[in-house]
Amino acid sequence: MYAVKSIVIIGSGNIATCLGNAFQQAGLTISGVYSPTVSSAQILADQLQTIRIHSLAEIPVNADAYLVAVKDSVIEEVSNTIPIVNGIVVHCSGMTPLQVLSKHKNYGVLWPIQSITKNSTINFKTIPFCVEGNNETTTSQLESFIKQVSDHVTLMNSEQRQYVHLASVFANNFSNHLFDLAYQIMESKGLSFDLIRPLIFETANKVQYNSPTDVQTGPAKRNDKVTMGRHIDLLKNNLELQQLYEILSKSIGKQNKG
Amino acid sequence: MYAVKSIVIIGSGNIATCLGNAFQQAGLTISGVYSPTVSSAQILADQLQTIRIHSLAEIPVNADAYLVAVKDSVIEEVSNTIPIVNGIVVHCSGMTPLQVLSKHKNYGVLWPIQSITKNSTINFKTIPFCVEGNNETTTSQLESFIKQVSDHVTLMNSEQRQYVHLASVFANNFSNHLFDLAYQIMESKGLSFDLIRPLIFETANKVQYNSPTDVQTGPAKRNDKVTMGRHIDLLKNNLELQQLYEILSKSIGKQNKG
Repeated sequence: MYAVKSIVIIGSGNIATCLGNAFQQAGLTISGVYSPTVSSAQILADQLQTIRIHSLAEIPVNADAYLVAVKDSVIEEVSNTIPIVNGIVVHCSGMTPLQVLSKHKNYGVLWPIQSITKNSTINFKTIPFCVEGNNETTTSQLESFIKQVSDHVTLMNSEQRQYVHLASVFANNFSNHLFDLAYQIMESKGLSFDLIRPLIFETANKVQYNSPTDVQTGPAKRNDKVTMGRHIDLLKNNLELQQLYEILSKSIGKQNKG
Repeated sequence: MYAVKSIVIIGSGNIATCLGNAFQQAGLTISGVYSPTVSSAQILADQLQTIRIHSLAEIPVNADAYLVAVKDSVIEEVSNTIPIVNGIVVHCSGMTPLQVLSKHKNYGVLWPIQSITKNSTINFKTIPFCVEGNNETTTSQLESFIKQVSDHVTLMNSEQRQYVHLASVFANNFSNHLFDLAYQIMESKGLSFDLIRPLIFETANKVQYNSPTDVQTGPAKRNDKVTMGRHIDLLKNNLELQQLYEILSKSIGKQNKG
């Protein structure tokens, strides 16, 4: 079993950029960058002090791993276009099954459980990675490899990973949307969102050490119908928010009875 | 205009306890504690090294302020039972109008925008307080007073405060419930909630410096129907979560078009 030391990066978006930088900082060799978007491929190649690869057909065949960091919808197509290589072909998607890479001999998944935006500087050390390989050796190789950038590595299969992805949508995308709705309520009354930023921080901080069930508060939790009625009344000109308020309150109430 | 230096605390719950401790630490005099729950009133009085007051009729009439830190539903009744006093009568509720205290000559509101649980040690310095008084002098007195425990004091009227309270329910109670639903999804598959705790922290951290609109990500934001369809499919045995998923995704989609 060899250690993964050299990587070709396919893609030049958020994950390709952030992981590429993390790998380089961990002392790994970036053997090249390919992306159909030539300009951003060149930027990333320059950043990582490596070559820009001009087409998938010209990809170096002797790298230890190939990181397919592209949109979910094209992972399979890109994988099928990569020539037969010796190294491990890897994708970084939560919802995409391992098997879309099955053209290759050795393949796997490295999925960071984090919402990654290009310009954020990410310290992957604290970010959990889900790892899957198509055989034991590949899994072990990927595990050792990713432990060089993260201290939180978990082996799981494609089905489990999909549920983590689903849970992440509730915990991240949907909760951020609620922050956005709160922002709109504040803005509609000329109030600064700064007033509730500390509350948002503390809400997330509390569940770092507690179960969310144990720290649930608010009128729905107390079944405080007077306050809920007043809130509904404040939303009388916004039927969408009213509906969301009612459904989420009902869901909290159900949880209490649970 | 005199400075508020001595306070009677009415109530012995979370807010009474946390604010009482903060006032004491700021060097203010706690003139006494009253609560119909004798045992917890005694505990708080002991903690604050002050006397337990045996009935509202026996309340000292010469304190600078009276903190009515009781459940929303009984604030008005408690206020009306307090004898005529010289100091300012204050409640600590987001949703309760100032006017429920209008029996008194000087009255106001001090509302911390935070979800307060009794045993949490709270540093009020970073917590925004909403302040309202029934006249300019009272408002100024309350403002100077609360600045001794918080660096973030905002004057606002009862109507504005209600909207901040409503926004807080979305930002805190509802988002915590989404963390709870994420917890349940993870638990149902035997997966540790630890895997998504860092994601929750980062979600809240991002909106400390950005607008939530700018950092929204996920399948609904991208209008990625394939991923949303797969998520809905994973929830086929949980119609409640399926409905929430659909409504929140639709709301995010609408926001994008907005």
